[in-house]
Amino acid sequence: MSDEQAHAVYAQARLGGRVTRGTRPAILVVDFCCGFTDPACTVGSDLTAEVEATNRLLAVARARGFPVVFTTIGYESNLRDAGLWIEKMPALAELALGGHWVDIDSRLGRREDETVVVKKGASAFFGTNLSAILVNLHVDTVILCGATTSGCVRATAVDLLQHGFPTLVPRECVGDRARAPHEANLFDIQAKYADVVSVDEAAAYLEGIPARAPAPAA
Amino acid sequence: MSDEQAHAVYAQARLGGRVTRGTRPAILVVDFCCGFTDPACTVGSDLTAEVEATNRLLAVARARGFPVVFTTIGYESNLRDAGLWIEKMPALAELALGGHWVDIDSRLGRREDETVVVKKGASAFFGTNLSAILVNLHVDTVILCGATTSGCVRATAVDLLQHGFPTLVPRECVGDRARAPHEANLFDIQAKYADVVSVDEAAAYLEGIPARAPAPAA
Amino acid sequence: MSDEQAHAVYAQARLGGRVTRGTRPAILVVDFCCGFTDPACTVGSDLTAEVEATNRLLAVARARGFPVVFTTIGYESNLRDAGLWIEKMPALAELALGGHWVDIDSRLGRREDETVVVKKGASAFFGTNLSAILVNLHVDTVILCGATTSGCVRATAVDLLQHGFPTLVPRECVGDRARAPHEANLFDIQAKYADVVSVDEAAAYLEGIPARAPAPAA
Amino acid sequence: MSDEQAHAVYAQARLGGRVTRGTRPAILVVDFCCGFTDPACTVGSDLTAEVEATNRLLAVARARGFPVVFTTIGYESNLRDAGLWIEKMPALAELALGGHWVDIDSRLGRREDETVVVKKGASAFFGTNLSAILVNLHVDTVILCGATTSGCVRATAVDLLQHGFPTLVPRECVGDRARAPHEANLFDIQAKYADVVSVDEAAAYLEGIPARAPAPAA
Repeated sequence: MSDEQAHAVYAQARLGGRVTRGTRPAILVVDFCCGFTDPACTVGSDLTAEVEATNRLLAVARARGFPVVFTTIGYESNLRDAGLWIEKMPALAELALGGHWVDIDSRLGRREDETVVVKKGASAFFGTNLSAILVNLHVDTVILCGATTSGCVRATAVDLLQHGFPTLVPRECVGDRARAPHEANLFDIQAKYADVVSVDEAAAYLEGIPARAPAPAA
Repeated sequence: MSDEQAHAVYAQARLGGRVTRGTRPAILVVDFCCGFTDPACTVGSDLTAEVEATNRLLAVARARGFPVVFTTIGYESNLRDAGLWIEKMPALAELALGGHWVDIDSRLGRREDETVVVKKGASAFFGTNLSAILVNLHVDTVILCGATTSGCVRATAVDLLQHGFPTLVPRECVGDRARAPHEANLFDIQAKYADVVSVDEAAAYLEGIPARAPAPAA
Repeated sequence: MSDEQAHAVYAQARLGGRVTRGTRPAILVVDFCCGFTDPACTVGSDLTAEVEATNRLLAVARARGFPVVFTTIGYESNLRDAGLWIEKMPALAELALGGHWVDIDSRLGRREDETVVVKKGASAFFGTNLSAILVNLHVDTVILCGATTSGCVRATAVDLLQHGFPTLVPRECVGDRARAPHEANLFDIQAKYADVVSVDEAAAYLEGIPARAPAPAA
Repeated sequence: MSDEQAHAVYAQARLGGRVTRGTRPAILVVDFCCGFTDPACTVGSDLTAEVEATNRLLAVARARGFPVVFTTIGYESNLRDAGLWIEKMPALAELALGGHWVDIDSRLGRREDETVVVKKGASAFFGTNLSAILVNLHVDTVILCGATTSGCVRATAVDLLQHGFPTLVPRECVGDRARAPHEANLFDIQAKYADVVSVDEAAAYLEGIPARAPAPAA
């Protein structure tokens, strides 16, 4: 968003600081389930480039013992658990628990020891125990990937900051169905909630800190 | 946001539905504390028009017995409660508990029986008991006013939907320090989280439903 | 718990008030899944009498259009979502998602339109969107049944109060694996969090308020 | 609680495991505000011994750079923020924000850099940003002290486990107004949520791990 007024005003308000990065990162992949990464689903779009960029970071994380957490959205057939959201976005009703759209996109190669958090709302924290999962793993930094930038990624970025997890958002690893909301939300995220970086910078960060012994299998 | 691609794509994804309005509304005024409504504060800006538009709705609500809830942001001097947010927005440290910037703007005429929720993060729900307050009051619809559109209003709109409260956002009653983020966030809110309406429509809604006996003083 | 000192001290501290009952109740059945109602599971015990008493209330609620919500506990095979709880209660690992122990006890005749909330912790609110479900249904009173009295029922009773839902706990409808913790927790619940009543009183309450049109099928 | 049936049944259910202790502890002191430690307040009782035992641990923690967090309860004069709890415990209305009962007991020597979390409910997590505070401080273990054992300590112990923080409860550092609920709740806490230990064991733990540089003053 090339908006000069906003940049000038935000500089004066001293927005856009930098978060302190830790040494125990996790990768959080929000809603790269088939319903969002396959254009055949009403709420989906083609996110091939974003999935591939995310895979680059997943390879580094897996090689170095950093945990990976996925989220997906899925509802009961009675939709009692979908709440108000289906009033604003009725096509969410297609995301039926047990169905294909809820599965994590197979291109991401999700492993058995990587948690899949089933969520009902926009934020990965709402109605889930994600915070406890990150605390249990002693995570002190999150790399946030996924879809959509203006929806669940934005809502999750706000909650990551609120819950105390410094966050990097690699811009190539988050996608949306339309360009303008994607850019507008990256602008907001960088100004107030997380550090928007390149996938190169995120990879360099993961490679520049000590590897971690993987958590023992349960 | 005059972005034709976004509008076309969003129509195809069936975004932008309409929430079901109830009969027990509350007005939620987010962060119209002096720190945000006074340009003399680093994070503030001139929101006179938005405060006046909000006052129009407050007058209707008070006359008809609908509850009003305010939020503000305030931190301890040690800033332990400010978390990561001051890394991204260091000027938030000016919002000291007990100080002037934390007071609700006196132009809003806050009454003794109107709760002020002290929050630490962007969303009015994070780290507060706002949900319990709304449940106790049997609120089934929220009119969301306040600042800033791209910050605490947006974060609160997402959480209102997630927590089950149908929400109207009167566009004249929410303000921001810069124009582009204001518009971009109203676009997102209308597409996915709440109904963006005119202050006239919000006033007509409040006047068109039965008045409510005010909650008894404690 | 016939403890005279506690009763005298609690009377002086003015504990044990009575919650205000509303007219839109829901029945919340906590963890009457097979893992807790079948003694063959390590964490289970024989709760036949409690299941039957609960069925009496379910019959009234279903006939009169009051919503019913169930909870169960289930974990991924990697147990990443089980957190610390399996350190204190390692047998919880038997509650595998997709397995028999997670199913709601078939004697309760759960209907398709009755939500099943999958939880990971003790409270039915932790890591779930139960609050939003109750708000969406405009519930203003909860009848709390289930197991165990000293575990998930107690934790849920505390959270129901905190979240703003007046609660009745019919003593015949909640069960535990041991007698003393059952009684001690009913004492605490009655003193501080909810009204412990007989199943007769709960049934009379449900029969004495207007019936409700069932929520439309989605 | 010398209840043989409960002990036998709990052993068979494999309750009462041991939490894994970390190396970055915090001391959490729940509701040792004057309203609870002064018998002159309706909800208070004489907790001199418990305050003194807690002071022993605070001295070790302060000397070794481990953070200390206090909680208190305080309500607005309109009591809108008190919710349902004042129906069960009407004397809570005495805990007025700005008044003496809300102050942390001066015998604990609270320092300027030690956070005071103002809570509205039983659990120190409900309606507060305590989880974010602990995450920001990279806390991996909590020593839980305070009052009352059967109320806010129990509710907080459940939430500490749920949020992922291994917890020790030194039995001499938690107090209640009556003996039986105190003992019954320590039994439940040890069985399911945290490790109940002696104050000696808690002190030895704090002395046996590396000291920590105090967090820089903001």
